[in-house]
Amino acid sequence: MLRFNNDYNHAAHDKVLEAVMNSRNGSFAGYGEDEWCSAAADMIRKLTSCDDAAVYFLPGATQVNFIVCAAALRPIESVICADSGHIFAHEAGSVEKTGHKITALPGSDGKITAAQIAEEASKYYDEGEKEYLTKPGMVYISFSTEWGTVYSRNEIAAISEVCKRYGMLLFVDGARMGYGLGAEGNDMSLEAFAELTDVFFIGGTKCGAMFGEALVIVNRQLQTGFRSYMKQNGAVLAKGWLMGLQFCALLQDNLYFEITKKADEAAVRIRESFRQKGIPLYIESPTNQQFVLLTDEQKSRLEEKYIFEFMTRTPEGLNCVRFCTGWNTTAEEVDQLIDDIGRL
Amino acid sequence: MLRFNNDYNHAAHDKVLEAVMNSRNGSFAGYGEDEWCSAAADMIRKLTSCDDAAVYFLPGATQVNFIVCAAALRPIESVICADSGHIFAHEAGSVEKTGHKITALPGSDGKITAAQIAEEASKYYDEGEKEYLTKPGMVYISFSTEWGTVYSRNEIAAISEVCKRYGMLLFVDGARMGYGLGAEGNDMSLEAFAELTDVFFIGGTKCGAMFGEALVIVNRQLQTGFRSYMKQNGAVLAKGWLMGLQFCALLQDNLYFEITKKADEAAVRIRESFRQKGIPLYIESPTNQQFVLLTDEQKSRLEEKYIFEFMTRTPEGLNCVRFCTGWNTTAEEVDQLIDDIGRL
Amino acid sequence: MLRFNNDYNHAAHDKVLEAVMNSRNGSFAGYGEDEWCSAAADMIRKLTSCDDAAVYFLPGATQVNFIVCAAALRPIESVICADSGHIFAHEAGSVEKTGHKITALPGSDGKITAAQIAEEASKYYDEGEKEYLTKPGMVYISFSTEWGTVYSRNEIAAISEVCKRYGMLLFVDGARMGYGLGAEGNDMSLEAFAELTDVFFIGGTKCGAMFGEALVIVNRQLQTGFRSYMKQNGAVLAKGWLMGLQFCALLQDNLYFEITKKADEAAVRIRESFRQKGIPLYIESPTNQQFVLLTDEQKSRLEEKYIFEFMTRTPEGLNCVRFCTGWNTTAEEVDQLIDDIGRL
Amino acid sequence: MLRFNNDYNHAAHDKVLEAVMNSRNGSFAGYGEDEWCSAAADMIRKLTSCDDAAVYFLPGATQVNFIVCAAALRPIESVICADSGHIFAHEAGSVEKTGHKITALPGSDGKITAAQIAEEASKYYDEGEKEYLTKPGMVYISFSTEWGTVYSRNEIAAISEVCKRYGMLLFVDGARMGYGLGAEGNDMSLEAFAELTDVFFIGGTKCGAMFGEALVIVNRQLQTGFRSYMKQNGAVLAKGWLMGLQFCALLQDNLYFEITKKADEAAVRIRESFRQKGIPLYIESPTNQQFVLLTDEQKSRLEEKYIFEFMTRTPEGLNCVRFCTGWNTTAEEVDQLIDDIGRL
Repeated sequence: MLRFNNDYNHAAHDKVLEAVMNSRNGSFAGYGEDEWCSAAADMIRKLTSCDDAAVYFLPGATQVNFIVCAAALRPIESVICADSGHIFAHEAGSVEKTGHKITALPGSDGKITAAQIAEEASKYYDEGEKEYLTKPGMVYISFSTEWGTVYSRNEIAAISEVCKRYGMLLFVDGARMGYGLGAEGNDMSLEAFAELTDVFFIGGTKCGAMFGEALVIVNRQLQTGFRSYMKQNGAVLAKGWLMGLQFCALLQDNLYFEITKKADEAAVRIRESFRQKGIPLYIESPTNQQFVLLTDEQKSRLEEKYIFEFMTRTPEGLNCVRFCTGWNTTAEEVDQLIDDIGRL
Repeated sequence: MLRFNNDYNHAAHDKVLEAVMNSRNGSFAGYGEDEWCSAAADMIRKLTSCDDAAVYFLPGATQVNFIVCAAALRPIESVICADSGHIFAHEAGSVEKTGHKITALPGSDGKITAAQIAEEASKYYDEGEKEYLTKPGMVYISFSTEWGTVYSRNEIAAISEVCKRYGMLLFVDGARMGYGLGAEGNDMSLEAFAELTDVFFIGGTKCGAMFGEALVIVNRQLQTGFRSYMKQNGAVLAKGWLMGLQFCALLQDNLYFEITKKADEAAVRIRESFRQKGIPLYIESPTNQQFVLLTDEQKSRLEEKYIFEFMTRTPEGLNCVRFCTGWNTTAEEVDQLIDDIGRL
Repeated sequence: MLRFNNDYNHAAHDKVLEAVMNSRNGSFAGYGEDEWCSAAADMIRKLTSCDDAAVYFLPGATQVNFIVCAAALRPIESVICADSGHIFAHEAGSVEKTGHKITALPGSDGKITAAQIAEEASKYYDEGEKEYLTKPGMVYISFSTEWGTVYSRNEIAAISEVCKRYGMLLFVDGARMGYGLGAEGNDMSLEAFAELTDVFFIGGTKCGAMFGEALVIVNRQLQTGFRSYMKQNGAVLAKGWLMGLQFCALLQDNLYFEITKKADEAAVRIRESFRQKGIPLYIESPTNQQFVLLTDEQKSRLEEKYIFEFMTRTPEGLNCVRFCTGWNTTAEEVDQLIDDIGRL
Repeated sequence: MLRFNNDYNHAAHDKVLEAVMNSRNGSFAGYGEDEWCSAAADMIRKLTSCDDAAVYFLPGATQVNFIVCAAALRPIESVICADSGHIFAHEAGSVEKTGHKITALPGSDGKITAAQIAEEASKYYDEGEKEYLTKPGMVYISFSTEWGTVYSRNEIAAISEVCKRYGMLLFVDGARMGYGLGAEGNDMSLEAFAELTDVFFIGGTKCGAMFGEALVIVNRQLQTGFRSYMKQNGAVLAKGWLMGLQFCALLQDNLYFEITKKADEAAVRIRESFRQKGIPLYIESPTNQQFVLLTDEQKSRLEEKYIFEFMTRTPEGLNCVRFCTGWNTTAEEVDQLIDDIGRL
């Protein structure tokens, strides 16, 4: 069986594993206060052209998400996000557990617009104090989104402008940052994220690392005491250097960006083979996640050889499923899948 | 510089790293629902002679601690522990963050007694409803403790009895379980933990793994929905199998127990060399953590070659410091340190 | 200016104030452990035909709402309610503050249906464990609702059945219980609430008391330790007897039910006068809250003499406003308003 | 039986009840946005000589305490208080429920000293960042304390200085403010509280009101959004004006200060009669709470006629009990008690 179910089913890129093996005889300071984390943070500050950014490494994306919320928001503040947002739909109420309401805005493609956000924020900010409402304190978006789409630079600039207008922070979940940046037609960059947002992260787990996300805090106020929030919520790893060195390996010679871009291209090849076969796309995605609508029979046929993810059943009785490539996906695997799609 | 500062300054035991490397071409189900986690859980159920135990793998010990509290306690319930307990003294208020008060009992050696616990519990339970007090719902102890000491089987049995009497859960922080079990004179065992407690964990991070703690939930009620608590608090690792295979490697052929026992023996050699030198021990520890009282000059001399941890300054002007061995400590390193202690 | 803005703009019914004055020379035990609270609880147990109910008195409805949630739900559990539900829309995130997500279901009349609830619960309960979702643990409905409507006995029985099927608690916010019960055509009763729900409250603040809500906990498990939840969340009033005696006064000789029924009748008279005038009703309400759609001019004209509440502006440019009667509303006040409506 | 058990066993001072009765025919804006609250706030701003203070009225003291903590502290911050502090010992973990650790300092008379606070704060602030510790963000003291004692102006000024040095807020629980200010030898004043602290409250419940505490927020930053914190935690009373008018009644013509001073004097008479009888005082208190050590026989004898509070049993087998006077205590009641003490 070949796995196209997600982008985290292989251990890590060879360069990452090599780096871990090469460190085996060394000894390091604990809790991320070591030379690897320091070097990786420097690389990221350079890549983002943001010398003042605080960069921290946390084991997983759910941790990043709720810890940023916990650190950024006062108890009466809430977060605005898309109704498909990972924090709203897939994290078991982790943000509410920290005491904050999430206001989910509807969207069919994983994205929300500056206009939607402005309308929601205006209800609170433009009509006098309303002590019975939570105060929108942060906007959370994902890049790429849960549906594989990406925001354009203009879209994020517009959202950023709304956030500034109302004093809300802008936070970008970049668990799939590499796949977003590698998408055909993408015009965002790490520099632009540092310029337009308050805080974002560069995903490692789904982009070639064993584990680890690199959090980039641009906003100075949010930097204050952040390591205590990490500690309080169990995200300070004893052997933090293991994350630093993985990011050093991934960011060297552009590896991170190349392997994710290659995965995007593979996914687009798969998408086009579905399209040629006349199988409807659920959504037009330029990244490593592709969503198509299969009949029961098509689904069964492909399940004989492939593992992929069932999303939902449409009213018409079709199956929305996800095929996901990753940094590890080989040309042969893609060729084989395309062949089998052709034979459906 | 040689590190005797802690037991988590090396990446992982060779067998662990090998296991990771060997898995590099495989692909696995995410979130700990894979064959490695399943196999490691089975090994642990066998080692504990507890077929009904739920076994989960979490990245770090702070996570385990506060998630167990969050899952086990109702909002009006509190935890009893030693005032040196990790959850009280070193986790940035992570348990209070989940909404629970910690009642810390005084103790000079990291341990608390059944009598102390009974006295505290009795204040709530034996004198009628007191709605203005929190209800002691759990007792937390560490094995080995923050001061390197271990509980005897009789001591834990007595604590267990008090817990049962008042309906409190008993939770054992086993971040240093291997070192505790390997201590000279120890009469506890994993089987005994499964018999006498409700929930405990077997530390990986400090005992030869890159990261990961194996949580063993004996209490049936506490098992219910536990994975959701893990998810909600960011402790479900995407590539969970990385923890399963590390534990498989460590538990095979008794490796886990051998390497930690060896570290205990090394530590005892160091302790005895201090004793022979006439340097006072701060506490009598049979495990891998040794605490001694150095003069300023002795401390400076050793700091030229070694990294070790400063704990506190005594009223007499001595420095309580910790020398810690680990699964990675070599005989040569110990010999060298002992030599230098001899030359003080 | 005459207030039709809400049902809590007068101090209290004369009988209530008299009762307070008559107690002035007495001295009482604190924290609700007095003879008045005891007597009022007995009266309520009789009215609900539920001998085993625990009955507590809390100062305000927001307190009741979030404390019931805090006491009833485990951290991974969420509450289902209507998107107009007071806990979702008007309490500043108080339930999320206790760590629980609210899943709001859409509804145009303040009510949700058993079918909607079943569909939502089924997503979690009928498709295998989903550790990334919160577990629906409670359903919250209001009687009467925010839009003045009431559930029929059949509707609540159906909701109760769904709750039982999935093991969810059913909680009824009865801040306007009196007005709900007094509605024309209503077939619910306090007995039926005790039979069909786990916990509900009988509002005092809006129904003739100075302050205070009578919480009726039918579910035995939820009764356990409930006073500690009240204390922990600041809802144990030092002079709790003041609430007990107010409820004694209100429940004596059916006063509570008569004054609220009279207010419903007054509201219906107002509603009909709007209807006769050809002013569209926003919703058909049988209780003390009436919602109509006024033109800007009509609104301005009525604002010269009356205080009423602006709700929202419709796309057509009409003003949805609320006229609310109360236990204190006099026939003269209603006559005058009807006169003025006639003259619009 | 005569109650000397506490200062909240009578409904309210006649002037307060009169004020409520006189308002019976009026109608008022809800949620504390009315003319009574406004007038009472103005009176308090004048009494404290603090024009910029925000003044809010909350039903109970536990609410005030945890809401101030919730609003003032970031999640990684903790509160320092005496181990007898009400928030630590008598509020069922309400502060921990909001996520904050309380660091309790030992004290035998209910007070803590500037030196103790400085020592505790210094551990965090003066030795480099320690992400595993909570950050002391607030100091909480009571005036008068749980043991009836009062801080001098010098003592509070010294504490205030330490708070300023480390950037911690100073919060004074004034549930018994009146009794503290009325104590013989007291040199604190409301003006001094406004000058030396960030936030404090003037207790109503124990000082002649039916219920209600007047919170005075001097610190500008803490004022921001405070009403939302009140709402979120259920402390915005629908008929908030009932608290405003009670405070208007109490503060008029110095009534509040006179009735509490008189209670202090009555308590001191009782204290002296115990002293003359040779019955040891547990503590020297100048306020309305008196603590003495009774033999079992003395206790039984007095229990025949009086209700008073048992505190604790000493190792010597004596009973520490509290006799508490209040605004309502009459000279006759005191005379009778003194008589009976004399006859012991």
